[in-house]
Amino acid sequence: MKKILFASTALVASAGFAAAEISFSGEAGFGVVYNDTAANEWSPDYYTTLSVSMTGETDGGLSFGADFDITMDNGATAVGDTEVHVEGGFGKLTVGAVGSASDAKLGIGDIGYSGLGVDNVAEVLIDAADSGNIMYSGSFGDFGVAMSYDMNGTEIFSIAATYTMGDYDLGVGYDDWGNLAAGSAFHIKAGGNFGDVALDAVFSRSSDIDTTAYGLNAAYTMGAATISAAYSNVDVGGASADAFGIGVSYDLGGGASVNAGIGENAAGATVADLGIIMTF
Amino acid sequence: MKKILFASTALVASAGFAAAEISFSGEAGFGVVYNDTAANEWSPDYYTTLSVSMTGETDGGLSFGADFDITMDNGATAVGDTEVHVEGGFGKLTVGAVGSASDAKLGIGDIGYSGLGVDNVAEVLIDAADSGNIMYSGSFGDFGVAMSYDMNGTEIFSIAATYTMGDYDLGVGYDDWGNLAAGSAFHIKAGGNFGDVALDAVFSRSSDIDTTAYGLNAAYTMGAATISAAYSNVDVGGASADAFGIGVSYDLGGGASVNAGIGENAAGATVADLGIIMTF
Amino acid sequence: MKKILFASTALVASAGFAAAEISFSGEAGFGVVYNDTAANEWSPDYYTTLSVSMTGETDGGLSFGADFDITMDNGATAVGDTEVHVEGGFGKLTVGAVGSASDAKLGIGDIGYSGLGVDNVAEVLIDAADSGNIMYSGSFGDFGVAMSYDMNGTEIFSIAATYTMGDYDLGVGYDDWGNLAAGSAFHIKAGGNFGDVALDAVFSRSSDIDTTAYGLNAAYTMGAATISAAYSNVDVGGASADAFGIGVSYDLGGGASVNAGIGENAAGATVADLGIIMTF
Repeated sequence: MKKILFASTALVASAGFAAAEISFSGEAGFGVVYNDTAANEWSPDYYTTLSVSMTGETDGGLSFGADFDITMDNGATAVGDTEVHVEGGFGKLTVGAVGSASDAKLGIGDIGYSGLGVDNVAEVLIDAADSGNIMYSGSFGDFGVAMSYDMNGTEIFSIAATYTMGDYDLGVGYDDWGNLAAGSAFHIKAGGNFGDVALDAVFSRSSDIDTTAYGLNAAYTMGAATISAAYSNVDVGGASADAFGIGVSYDLGGGASVNAGIGENAAGATVADLGIIMTF
Repeated sequence: MKKILFASTALVASAGFAAAEISFSGEAGFGVVYNDTAANEWSPDYYTTLSVSMTGETDGGLSFGADFDITMDNGATAVGDTEVHVEGGFGKLTVGAVGSASDAKLGIGDIGYSGLGVDNVAEVLIDAADSGNIMYSGSFGDFGVAMSYDMNGTEIFSIAATYTMGDYDLGVGYDDWGNLAAGSAFHIKAGGNFGDVALDAVFSRSSDIDTTAYGLNAAYTMGAATISAAYSNVDVGGASADAFGIGVSYDLGGGASVNAGIGENAAGATVADLGIIMTF
Repeated sequence: MKKILFASTALVASAGFAAAEISFSGEAGFGVVYNDTAANEWSPDYYTTLSVSMTGETDGGLSFGADFDITMDNGATAVGDTEVHVEGGFGKLTVGAVGSASDAKLGIGDIGYSGLGVDNVAEVLIDAADSGNIMYSGSFGDFGVAMSYDMNGTEIFSIAATYTMGDYDLGVGYDDWGNLAAGSAFHIKAGGNFGDVALDAVFSRSSDIDTTAYGLNAAYTMGAATISAAYSNVDVGGASADAFGIGVSYDLGGGASVNAGIGENAAGATVADLGIIMTF
């Protein structure tokens, strides 16, 4: 006997419950991924994510909740990304698998079905310090700020600030690497929408390890299709590597899209992918 | 604070939502299993399955979705049987833990509460090649066809076709064992409903390993009770073993049934079981 | 696209479905825990629990169901506490992770956000034998009884009986340690509500290992706040250790409460905690 949940918009519109709620959403996809240096050049790829969100509100108007995902990625399953939070006029305090403030607020988009690894090259310094178990985030008018700390862990501290002006946004971030490594990194991100074109750029630098990384992403939307192009570069002590690619996403409606991309990753391999992404 | 889902039939009848949905169904059971050759002749048995189904439809009428189970089997838990699919007039394309086409389309029923292993003897050649991560299935009038392939894995390829004529059905299947082993197997299945009696038979043969397996299953339903009898035989190079058993299932209503069986498995052990199976 | 479940009270009131149901409830919390003997004196703490309950009823009025939890505790995830049951006029028969009858029926409350380990000292003999995979429980007027057995496992057998007289309750329990260890233990529990004050006490003794444990818990509720104090003592062959603490819980409404406690555990460490507990 099956139990079926309605789409939330209909339910919420017809009801005035303030009570605690448990809601579900999901994503799934399948496709093929190509890498001309892999033992199997073509690989099948499939994944599913069920996201569970539990929310409530105190008598005093404080929001609280918890979230986690049940995931399957090419056969490997996990219950993860668990976070617990309280939120009020002061902002939002989150405990759990929060990652770093820089990762949460900065960073550029993926290309194609699986991302092809292009943005990861630009985000290498961000990803290297993406650890934290406590995060504060708040917004003050057009400004947003986030701070994260990995207490009793790597002790990585990260802070990021964003500023939005209409169609444009700016962001800066700083990561102190705690006991993971001596050093720190800073990040700058800028983005803007120019009609049907969206541009994003990120720049990261750590003088402690003489590493600079940057990336650009441009997306052009025409009707149901979005075409994206990305370029990333990382330089470590004068030795540099880059990655680039173009991708297309076609919206099928109902939450599904077809996505494809082709590019060259930082190791010089030609990579491509094609797949359908579904949201529920 | 508990959230309760309604039975789907009531909800679906009163609503016309075409939107993406996440639905849940479940099964659970407990009982005792007997084996006169086991260290503990009587063992308790219990299991639960929560099945999650996420479905949607594109603007063009293409159905898509993903499914997985959260299971517990005598204390061992897993998130598994994950599949992602698209379905249209062309048929259904599924990626994930799809198994083989022969296993999906052929095979005979279980006996008693836990199956007692009788059907497994007849299905030994089907089960041996039950691997795949891509499957196509389609139906054309009374004909059905399925093809599966284990890409970048065992490379087992399986194809099965079925034909339904009123109360009777026929099926054939063929498995190429890929890089699992040199060889292949073919399968034939036939079934029919004769009033309150249902008969099913399956025959498998692999000349590569000189193995023949077959099995018969007869079920007689009178009111809430169904009595089943099964016989299976496997012959490997002239050495044969068989298994047989009888079982009864009594429908308690509301999704629950009491099930019991007794038989002899292929190892010559007397096996029996008694348990309640619940569906939600 | 998010799916949202309503609060159950509203749904149940407006519907008369007898059909099988799958329902969800949840709990989450985060806070800090202090221990002056730990390498990191202050530790962050967070957890989430999603509880799944599947229930049905046969045509003959027998209730049946299955329950399990999907949990995350400071990053460690599990699917657990799975139980399958049938329930009728005869009582309730449960199979799965049932623990012992003594643990299910006896025992005293926690202090603060995380319990601080005070009650665990008093319950050391109960917790030592908290194993079982089959439990029967029933109630007969003011009397309740439970029996558990760990079949094909530790073979621990546990039986507990309770008696309720208005605001007062009494309980006794007995555990036979099966093949876990030679010996047994018995337990006595008493409790009562005296206006805004609730008192609970438990006493356990095993002469086989010359061990005596006891504990007291007093709670005083005034408005949204509940103040608790607890004392526990364990004596093994004349060598004794004790633990004590005080805690406060403040109900924020909507299912959330702030909880704090401070005390000394059995190892002589000063322990304290502060956290928010949310129920959904």
